[in-house]
Amino acid sequence: MRVDILTVGDELLIGQVVNTNATWLGEQFSAMGARIGRIVSMADNHNSIQAELQRSVEVADVVVLSGGIGPTHDDVTRQALADFFGVELCFDASIYQRIEERYAARGQTPPESNRALAEIPEDFEVLNNPIGTAPGLWHTVTDGEETTVVIALPGVPGELKAIVQDYVVPRLKDEVSLSSSAQRTLLTAGLGESELQERLQSSKLLENDEVELAYLPSSKGVRLRLTAHASSAQEAREKLQALEEKIRERVSDYIYGMDNDMLEAIVGEMLFERGLTLAVAESCTGGLLADRITNVPGSSRYMKGGVVAYSNTLKEELLSVSVDDLRMQGAVSEVVVLQMAEGIRELAHTDVGMAITGIAGPKGGTPEKPVGSVWIGLATAEDARAETFVFTTDRLFNKDRSCTEALNMLRRFLQEESDVQDTAEVSIEAPKQ
Amino acid sequence: MRVDILTVGDELLIGQVVNTNATWLGEQFSAMGARIGRIVSMADNHNSIQAELQRSVEVADVVVLSGGIGPTHDDVTRQALADFFGVELCFDASIYQRIEERYAARGQTPPESNRALAEIPEDFEVLNNPIGTAPGLWHTVTDGEETTVVIALPGVPGELKAIVQDYVVPRLKDEVSLSSSAQRTLLTAGLGESELQERLQSSKLLENDEVELAYLPSSKGVRLRLTAHASSAQEAREKLQALEEKIRERVSDYIYGMDNDMLEAIVGEMLFERGLTLAVAESCTGGLLADRITNVPGSSRYMKGGVVAYSNTLKEELLSVSVDDLRMQGAVSEVVVLQMAEGIRELAHTDVGMAITGIAGPKGGTPEKPVGSVWIGLATAEDARAETFVFTTDRLFNKDRSCTEALNMLRRFLQEESDVQDTAEVSIEAPKQ
Repeated sequence: MRVDILTVGDELLIGQVVNTNATWLGEQFSAMGARIGRIVSMADNHNSIQAELQRSVEVADVVVLSGGIGPTHDDVTRQALADFFGVELCFDASIYQRIEERYAARGQTPPESNRALAEIPEDFEVLNNPIGTAPGLWHTVTDGEETTVVIALPGVPGELKAIVQDYVVPRLKDEVSLSSSAQRTLLTAGLGESELQERLQSSKLLENDEVELAYLPSSKGVRLRLTAHASSAQEAREKLQALEEKIRERVSDYIYGMDNDMLEAIVGEMLFERGLTLAVAESCTGGLLADRITNVPGSSRYMKGGVVAYSNTLKEELLSVSVDDLRMQGAVSEVVVLQMAEGIRELAHTDVGMAITGIAGPKGGTPEKPVGSVWIGLATAEDARAETFVFTTDRLFNKDRSCTEALNMLRRFLQEESDVQDTAEVSIEAPKQ
Repeated sequence: MRVDILTVGDELLIGQVVNTNATWLGEQFSAMGARIGRIVSMADNHNSIQAELQRSVEVADVVVLSGGIGPTHDDVTRQALADFFGVELCFDASIYQRIEERYAARGQTPPESNRALAEIPEDFEVLNNPIGTAPGLWHTVTDGEETTVVIALPGVPGELKAIVQDYVVPRLKDEVSLSSSAQRTLLTAGLGESELQERLQSSKLLENDEVELAYLPSSKGVRLRLTAHASSAQEAREKLQALEEKIRERVSDYIYGMDNDMLEAIVGEMLFERGLTLAVAESCTGGLLADRITNVPGSSRYMKGGVVAYSNTLKEELLSVSVDDLRMQGAVSEVVVLQMAEGIRELAHTDVGMAITGIAGPKGGTPEKPVGSVWIGLATAEDARAETFVFTTDRLFNKDRSCTEALNMLRRFLQEESDVQDTAEVSIEAPKQ
């Protein structure tokens, strides 16, 4: 099943409103197993709507329009639909009655302009709007064996979502047989796009074109999007599962979650489960690591706080970093990051201390330490470790990527800890056998 | 000038990524006075790209593509462009040299897959990517008197923005004559949308339909977008100027900048000009205030650092907040926020200390202090002040909005300081006249 999404509204074109309706609709229909053909935003303009409708009706099984069905003069979607299908707009008394009832419940009568909401193209079905006045519309076009469904929805996000969830998704599931595909996104950190690709492409992961693998890099790491197509949903899921297993065999250490997981939430959950507390010391990331950690509701259960030691004086006075090491090794060095991690751990009386120091850029690099150089350190009562990276010349990317790698280092440390524990339990039990 | 925006990427269709690139591009080209014809998202698929390209090239003056020009097998935009214009992909040694130099700066050599980035359609011009490896492309097509420009950009937002700001907008302004309209955005903080609207709508600001005013609220404050249309560019600018003056008369105290100004950069510049240093103490914002301040390149000239005092212990031990006040008044109180501001000022030896404490949510509210309650404090050697707000139940919005209001409080404080100084200078000089 191919679904095209047509969103109508000047505000979408001029950058006034981010098109979250399209994103949400894409997610809903993809989750049903449909393939999204294209998403088009166009002006509140009769001709534009007709042109895009024409192109989509020719190739898609379902065309979903949103926006432009309100009561004002710039709402032209209803008229464009009527003209496209060569029918008249007709006044539907039951729609208007429902609008009058909504107003009456507040002791009011509807403004005259609301009569337009009840003018719908002849033979279109009405989808009740449970939270607003503008109803959705449904029209099934049959041409020989081909059936196309055209659906028009209000642009107000809450109303659109209600109609899709209440009517559109259940009815499409009933009426349309879906092609079978399955999709999953694996979230990775610690390897770049091309390093991942080298590890994954040498092996024959994609021996047929019924599975697809896409690399989506960002400052949060590289996401791997897996897609599988098959003649049945069960078969598609099995293919997806097989692909995922092959990928995990090769890069399992770098996969921190899937789909909408957040690294900071995963690490937070691990800390909480193990009863460990955390504090962070930041130089080049300037507070972003603490910020990301505290974006997670409930993070105060394990996150005690941190120090942003932008100046060397604060590194010395609060984090007990050695003046000599700062002078001899520089603030961006292994010895300093380890002292920062241990310093914040002691200052905040926590189990774990994390530290980041680096050159965020765009200036401040040297030949030995170019812009984007970062040291990340971790300290516990028993352990201390540090890693270094060289990222880009983009300040904000470097800040965010440094935090991602710091969180991933903490995740791997916590994972090792539990692996060690699991092994220890096994060896204790072993002699009994 | 009609601009069409074509964004390429499976992730845009399936609801995985919100298409903020399209929104940003729409805003940029609209601000230039261009009309956005349509925005289309399509799959990483050769035929889809060709089909949409065909439709847009026929009607638009400028076609901007983004995405699908990376090094991996699912990046097909370069090949689709070559095929569309009937040319070959050619290896451009200077592009690859630049990629090698980027890697060499980190002591590395590029992975083999990066060679694909230097394969560009014959006769296309290269737009250097200042922060990444995939360059942008520019192609001018002339057919009789008609000229169409086709531009391809990387999908990574930071890289796309850099290329558009550095090359695309300046060059289009040079080469293309624009219809006459003028646009400006005034950035405000300190008043909500409806408070602003009340102050601005009672007066007859918009007496004709050739000027428009839109309210765009966000956690960074409310942006006011002013648009003026006229028969000449000069006239449009004059109308815009007149509207701006009327708005400034009414709400000047709340306007902190315009267009792409960042509040943190404006405040930073004010601090630097006055030779003042800053440190911050954060509870509910968890490091975000320090993060936003240090997003500004060169901020280490005035920003010394901060403490994220998520736990009460850190508030007491590092910021010298009174245990009794914490117990009696609670962590979210005027007395505590003032002690935090003074505490961080002394700890970091700075001229100014700022502090934020509140209930970010979604849980943790009480009838007296609902979720979203925030106290913001400011301390200098001579002055101390605090303000309280109640925002929403959304954790991330509350964090960001609290930081915006803290920065705005600091801006207004620094502004008052210089107003007092100016007045003092005037009164000293006055007797001479």
